[in-house]
Amino acid sequence: MAKSDYMDLSHHLSDEARNIKPSQLKGMYKYWGTPGLLNLAGVPHPSLFPYETMSADVLPPTAFSVGDSDGILSWLWSIFKNKQSKTQITIPKYADPRDGPSAIQLSTALQYSMVAGLPVFVDFVRNFTLQVFQPAYSDFKVLANSGNTDGWTKACALLCQPGEFILTEDWTYPGALLSAWPSGVRPYPVPMDKLGMIPDDLERILAEWEEHGHEGKRRPHVMYTIPIGQNPTGAVMDTNRKQAIYDICVKYDIIIVEDDPYYFLQYPEYKRKSERSLRNHISGKVGPETSRKFLDTLAPSYLKIDHQGRVIRLDTFSKTIGPGCRLGWTTCNPLFATTLEDYSASKTNQTSGISQAMVMQLVSKQWGYDGYIRWLRGIGAQYTERRDLMLDSLFEASTSGLGLAPNYDLSQGTVTVYDAYVKPTGILYSNLDEKLPSRDKTLFSFAIPNSGMFLWIKFHLKNHRDWVPHPTPGSTLEVKLWTDLVKAGVMFAPGYMFSTDEEDTPSEESFAESHLRSEYAHMRVSFSSATKENITKAMKTFVEVTLKFFR
Amino acid sequence: MAKSDYMDLSHHLSDEARNIKPSQLKGMYKYWGTPGLLNLAGVPHPSLFPYETMSADVLPPTAFSVGDSDGILSWLWSIFKNKQSKTQITIPKYADPRDGPSAIQLSTALQYSMVAGLPVFVDFVRNFTLQVFQPAYSDFKVLANSGNTDGWTKACALLCQPGEFILTEDWTYPGALLSAWPSGVRPYPVPMDKLGMIPDDLERILAEWEEHGHEGKRRPHVMYTIPIGQNPTGAVMDTNRKQAIYDICVKYDIIIVEDDPYYFLQYPEYKRKSERSLRNHISGKVGPETSRKFLDTLAPSYLKIDHQGRVIRLDTFSKTIGPGCRLGWTTCNPLFATTLEDYSASKTNQTSGISQAMVMQLVSKQWGYDGYIRWLRGIGAQYTERRDLMLDSLFEASTSGLGLAPNYDLSQGTVTVYDAYVKPTGILYSNLDEKLPSRDKTLFSFAIPNSGMFLWIKFHLKNHRDWVPHPTPGSTLEVKLWTDLVKAGVMFAPGYMFSTDEEDTPSEESFAESHLRSEYAHMRVSFSSATKENITKAMKTFVEVTLKFFR
Repeated sequence: MAKSDYMDLSHHLSDEARNIKPSQLKGMYKYWGTPGLLNLAGVPHPSLFPYETMSADVLPPTAFSVGDSDGILSWLWSIFKNKQSKTQITIPKYADPRDGPSAIQLSTALQYSMVAGLPVFVDFVRNFTLQVFQPAYSDFKVLANSGNTDGWTKACALLCQPGEFILTEDWTYPGALLSAWPSGVRPYPVPMDKLGMIPDDLERILAEWEEHGHEGKRRPHVMYTIPIGQNPTGAVMDTNRKQAIYDICVKYDIIIVEDDPYYFLQYPEYKRKSERSLRNHISGKVGPETSRKFLDTLAPSYLKIDHQGRVIRLDTFSKTIGPGCRLGWTTCNPLFATTLEDYSASKTNQTSGISQAMVMQLVSKQWGYDGYIRWLRGIGAQYTERRDLMLDSLFEASTSGLGLAPNYDLSQGTVTVYDAYVKPTGILYSNLDEKLPSRDKTLFSFAIPNSGMFLWIKFHLKNHRDWVPHPTPGSTLEVKLWTDLVKAGVMFAPGYMFSTDEEDTPSEESFAESHLRSEYAHMRVSFSSATKENITKAMKTFVEVTLKFFR
Repeated sequence: MAKSDYMDLSHHLSDEARNIKPSQLKGMYKYWGTPGLLNLAGVPHPSLFPYETMSADVLPPTAFSVGDSDGILSWLWSIFKNKQSKTQITIPKYADPRDGPSAIQLSTALQYSMVAGLPVFVDFVRNFTLQVFQPAYSDFKVLANSGNTDGWTKACALLCQPGEFILTEDWTYPGALLSAWPSGVRPYPVPMDKLGMIPDDLERILAEWEEHGHEGKRRPHVMYTIPIGQNPTGAVMDTNRKQAIYDICVKYDIIIVEDDPYYFLQYPEYKRKSERSLRNHISGKVGPETSRKFLDTLAPSYLKIDHQGRVIRLDTFSKTIGPGCRLGWTTCNPLFATTLEDYSASKTNQTSGISQAMVMQLVSKQWGYDGYIRWLRGIGAQYTERRDLMLDSLFEASTSGLGLAPNYDLSQGTVTVYDAYVKPTGILYSNLDEKLPSRDKTLFSFAIPNSGMFLWIKFHLKNHRDWVPHPTPGSTLEVKLWTDLVKAGVMFAPGYMFSTDEEDTPSEESFAESHLRSEYAHMRVSFSSATKENITKAMKTFVEVTLKFFR
């Protein structure tokens, strides 16, 4: 792996980061664990921890079918297999000393430990990052965090001066904005298409900023991006697009914070129910060969093209094991890693040792690397099934009254965009590829998500009878639709939550005082958490309410 | 409980705190869980969490003797009892719905949840706080945090403007300073005696600041204090002293952040080995009566006298269950609590659900309130035994060459201060109460700690042959002594770590470039973590090395 372009990026550190003082314990760490040295520096005694062992009944890595020939009976088979092959993992208070420093034991997990993570954690995630994301330079560091919110908060403090702008996607994860907001760090949105940020727009924004400035503010030097399964739009950025964005970031010296919780939730293209086959071209067997084959199907991480060390990548176990673990990791260059480690030591201390031990005993010790990859495939297949079910249900619900037709102008690559329109009564639209009578009558449109957990629906408010052009409150209509849906028994996430435009936020009281991007409203619909039955029911309600709303 | 004095303290909020935006999810929470409402707002599906159950083998609340008549065989009995009465706790994936919202289940613990804590956590710690600390106003709030470092970091962000001073004890926990430091929040030390901060000095500092200012900075409006088992000095602040400090804080409108990890590690006065009796005046039985009797022996929390809502109290399970839990809670007035909750939601998200579930299944469900109080008593008794052992060993190690004598001038209330001096050779000092030949020849002195985990030793450097007055590097001698000790096989925490004087920090490389408070050096010696055998060994080495150092 090349290190030739590897850069000194210390000029990106914020004043706050420059003020971080390393723990004075560091001077003592070199002696820590010296054989024969009596350490009276002060921590609680493990004999006083009340847990003797912790254990868990866990699923096998193959619990969920990946739709291959081994899993032809898919659904039922999975359930049957689960029941059959549950195993128990156990964490002892004291591991066998012959198991070395990466052994997992409660006497260590329940004790103070290094903020970078327990040795087993650091070993596992570093090897995982190396094999899966294939960073373009070899001396990258990994560092435990308490999930991507914690990871981003710290990356933001590492890099951003109060009051400066950061580049974000046009619509983005509200948590990231909320974290940056208290210190006055605000988003500067980059327009998106179905593959995410548009390079030309990014370049234009930066060039114009360089030339004309913007509110007297420093040109952004930090980008926050969710390149896979973008929240809320579901966009997946491919290699070419990432390379184009990265090149612009090199040109303008921008640090990329790659928040990638949905990386392993990349799905095959959606096909209508009748056209789908159960068979997957990669076997569901656990092993290096199937792991590699699967990983090769995924869009790459920015790490793979980051020859300068300007990417901070955030990974989490939230979507693949469970959000309540509050466990993830940050991958970045050694300078940033050391600073983040010192910052974590002073601001939060280590992440939960119980979480680290429980997740590592499962993922590292019980399943192993290839087992975990297989688990990720199973999770991905499950969410694929849910996505397909939501779309199937939407298509089915649309057979009466609402038409759905592909919009080839807006579709890109493997991403198909659909427009929904009111069917003229008395006419049967059996051919869904049929052209719309008139684009003006589109009620809503959406891109089929190939990743993530969400269907992002754009409503064409100007086809609503109450709509009048900006600056008349558009959010009145978004909130009205959202409220109509809740009253009918379905709750989506309203689009304004994901807006980078501060003015889009309606007042909490009335939901109706402010205005939105006037021509459109949006909803983010999750296919991740409802039961299959409820997804079907929700889509039916959604179509009914929407037709009524636009009537 | 009176609420009459309860104050609006919103003027204490920092600019950052005023800028915090509440999560927009809040608008949706009122619908969350509405029967029949299909929530497609978006979280992972619990069927995809790989853990079916989690369990643990745990000790009973009575595992450790409290030295009462039930535990007359103390040490051996404890071990025997442990082995006999280990029980298993189990957390199911789905609890019985009849157990209500405070039931613990993995489907909830592994999911996203409210940052204030799981319902069982909030219920337990609120009731615990109410019963144990007896707050002076009734509408206090509790809020989960990831341990006191996290709790303090957030309290500091809530209140402090960048660059301002906070009041601290003269020597204090370095982690608290490190957390505040990056935003330029610096400690302004208040002199201490054996009971902690000295009220007269506090009043003087504030009055002088009011009159003359200090570096053009705002008069401090936030106090960071560790009133029980103060780290590093071990000081315990009693009711009268707390009331005096509180009254000054009312007069000068100061918010008190009470960091109290050692609250339950309050010990009876040390008696020499020969004078100690095993018998404790409170029975070790589990029940409301023994709980109350025990709690009445403890110095109170500031909460008990805080009729205005100006105390933010930090509690942690780190010293009583295990630091690796990263679990604690913040108690404060509703305004601060709401702001801290919004801040946590945006900056870190909830604390580990696995930790919350594991600790609550043990403490709340298995042991219950009175069981946990009994556990705390057992832990306290264990650390009392360790403290006693360390002092016994020090007295024993001192019989040859080193004398130890009480210093009645410096002793206060139940706190006895000892001076150590070189015994003139050839003379047997059997009477330890004997006056020192000359105070000038004191090598070190220490107060017997009645709480916490540490013995704080003050070395009288001016009795070292290499000592010359300020500004000659004093730290050279502190670091030399520390290094001598490490080379002899004992590691303490060097005093400069706990200094509030920035100049006291030696450079990391040489340990010897800067100067220290010139006449004295300090070491913090922990009796918490070594084995009993090693405590004895360490004290022997300590005395030998110190005698050699001063020779």
